[in-house]
Amino acid sequence: MPTMTGMDLRKELQYKIDNKTKPLGALGRLEEVALQVGLIQRSVRPQINHPHIVVFAGDHGIAATGLVNPYPQAVTAQMVLNFMAGGAAINVFCRQQEIGLTIVDTGVNFDFPEVPSSQKLIRAKIGYGTRNYLEGDAMSREEALQAMEAGGKIVADLSREGCNCIGFGEMGIGNTSAASLIMSFVTGIPVEDCVGRGTGVNDEQLERKIATLQEVSRLHLPAVAASPASLTILQHVGGFEIAMMTGAYLKAAELNMIILVDGFITTSALLLARLSEQGKEVQDHCIFSHTSGEQGHEKMLQYLGARPLLHLGMRLGEGTGAAMVLPLVQSAVSFLREMASFESAGVSRE
Amino acid sequence: MPTMTGMDLRKELQYKIDNKTKPLGALGRLEEVALQVGLIQRSVRPQINHPHIVVFAGDHGIAATGLVNPYPQAVTAQMVLNFMAGGAAINVFCRQQEIGLTIVDTGVNFDFPEVPSSQKLIRAKIGYGTRNYLEGDAMSREEALQAMEAGGKIVADLSREGCNCIGFGEMGIGNTSAASLIMSFVTGIPVEDCVGRGTGVNDEQLERKIATLQEVSRLHLPAVAASPASLTILQHVGGFEIAMMTGAYLKAAELNMIILVDGFITTSALLLARLSEQGKEVQDHCIFSHTSGEQGHEKMLQYLGARPLLHLGMRLGEGTGAAMVLPLVQSAVSFLREMASFESAGVSRE
Repeated sequence: MPTMTGMDLRKELQYKIDNKTKPLGALGRLEEVALQVGLIQRSVRPQINHPHIVVFAGDHGIAATGLVNPYPQAVTAQMVLNFMAGGAAINVFCRQQEIGLTIVDTGVNFDFPEVPSSQKLIRAKIGYGTRNYLEGDAMSREEALQAMEAGGKIVADLSREGCNCIGFGEMGIGNTSAASLIMSFVTGIPVEDCVGRGTGVNDEQLERKIATLQEVSRLHLPAVAASPASLTILQHVGGFEIAMMTGAYLKAAELNMIILVDGFITTSALLLARLSEQGKEVQDHCIFSHTSGEQGHEKMLQYLGARPLLHLGMRLGEGTGAAMVLPLVQSAVSFLREMASFESAGVSRE
Repeated sequence: MPTMTGMDLRKELQYKIDNKTKPLGALGRLEEVALQVGLIQRSVRPQINHPHIVVFAGDHGIAATGLVNPYPQAVTAQMVLNFMAGGAAINVFCRQQEIGLTIVDTGVNFDFPEVPSSQKLIRAKIGYGTRNYLEGDAMSREEALQAMEAGGKIVADLSREGCNCIGFGEMGIGNTSAASLIMSFVTGIPVEDCVGRGTGVNDEQLERKIATLQEVSRLHLPAVAASPASLTILQHVGGFEIAMMTGAYLKAAELNMIILVDGFITTSALLLARLSEQGKEVQDHCIFSHTSGEQGHEKMLQYLGARPLLHLGMRLGEGTGAAMVLPLVQSAVSFLREMASFESAGVSRE
């Protein structure tokens, strides 16, 4: 079938959707997803191949201070070991739904042993955690660039292996703080409105987290305001895992993949990816999976004009929201490919 | 493992959920589903076996008048033929998710040929459609009872074959009208607030649909008020497919199955099942899949105190909402069974 583009394809897809044996619009948001996936793949018979989730893990200098996180920094490494052993939520959900899973050490403060594990680990360590952004930049400009490139390369490798639908997840004690700062710098929303409870913060801890991040924001605002580019923001307050995801989004869009957007931290990387020159069309490739229980996520989604498919009160990260939404995307594609039309089934219209 | 009951089991399940390697409550509504399924199966290691959807099809006498439905009555039979050929939305979704599918002719106004088809049809015809309830009762008391028993038998057969998780769907031109009347009689909400657009009704048609159903309601209210039991309501304004679903709900709960509740019409059958003496605990077995785009459904769910998992604007019936929710239920069960605990994974707590 010849490839169509632009309006012709959109009309052709809408016609095909409307002619399935169902009342007009009766599959609701699945119809929007079918249209979007058709437009991404430039086909009236799109398909999902080798869906994959990549979990980027990294440590944050600020976490060692205990000012923003109740869990100790060591939990990042412990959870990566849990991923490698197949025991975390994202392992379970990927097994259940036959989603490929890759774990990436972007900069965890731990040397993972070179032992056989049920789950492969990509070793792409930029450092042993970022530096504490209360005392300087989180990383160098070169490190930020290196991380973005590494993220892009991981996506390119998966694409070459046949994957055309990807979700990103993350693990990093302290990374809701980096995401809040990024959100504030990109959207202009005051940092206190971007901060949430992260992982198990109580009222008192939340107050301290907000005060700390307000201080960080004041420290880095002049430099970011002077050059509000994604690389600058990453350098000042980013995380290695967020930098890799930023590069990963850009590469996935460039390679025309469907991107399943997870929660608060992964969406902060999308905010950065959109800032760049090549990032203009990234969002066209994004299916927003869910609204996280982390309060800033809803505001991020509003800023993006995004309407996620699921509202399950999940706030775990790891890409678990992206995993949850995949069956719905598969259903959207399946009905477009497989359902009979009124004509083919001999069903009367109104 | 010995079977526990009541509070002990609930505590044990909650402890197990809380000790998985994730922040407390971070899997949101999946945690509620895991708890519910554990309580239904009286096990801390529940599992879903042979999930199945049964689509009950039947015709409605009122539909022949054209007063409530823009689609001709013949579409019911045409859609059953579409189910048998594997071309409808529910066929596609069941194939995708490996859900068993059974189609039941409860009383379609058509003789289906005895030819090989890709999808089995259970022939349980009570009649060639109900009678027009503008002119008398929709069915006899005996027919209502016969239909309820037939629905129960279909569920019992599936349970015997190993199914422990079931969803019901329906097809029947005119059946949103029956569902609206049932809803009004059970809940006491005026019939005009129970009526929606059904399948493709425009403003003028909606006005006529409401006026017609107000007349039907006035006609049958005295008899229903005198004996407000499910059998009476079915006799006066029911449908054969709704009567079979009523019996199916009761049997599924009796056999301790997980019930995935679909949309407006299937929920109207649940309203009836709850009325009966054996129906007191039916709702404990119900996972509410989605909020239908049909406006009365949201009010039904409020009446039941139910919070569906999905909000996708779907309004197709056929059990398609139930099919959409199954992967989430499977994820809930999977995390409960397979995720590591803090202890087993060696992950530090707060």
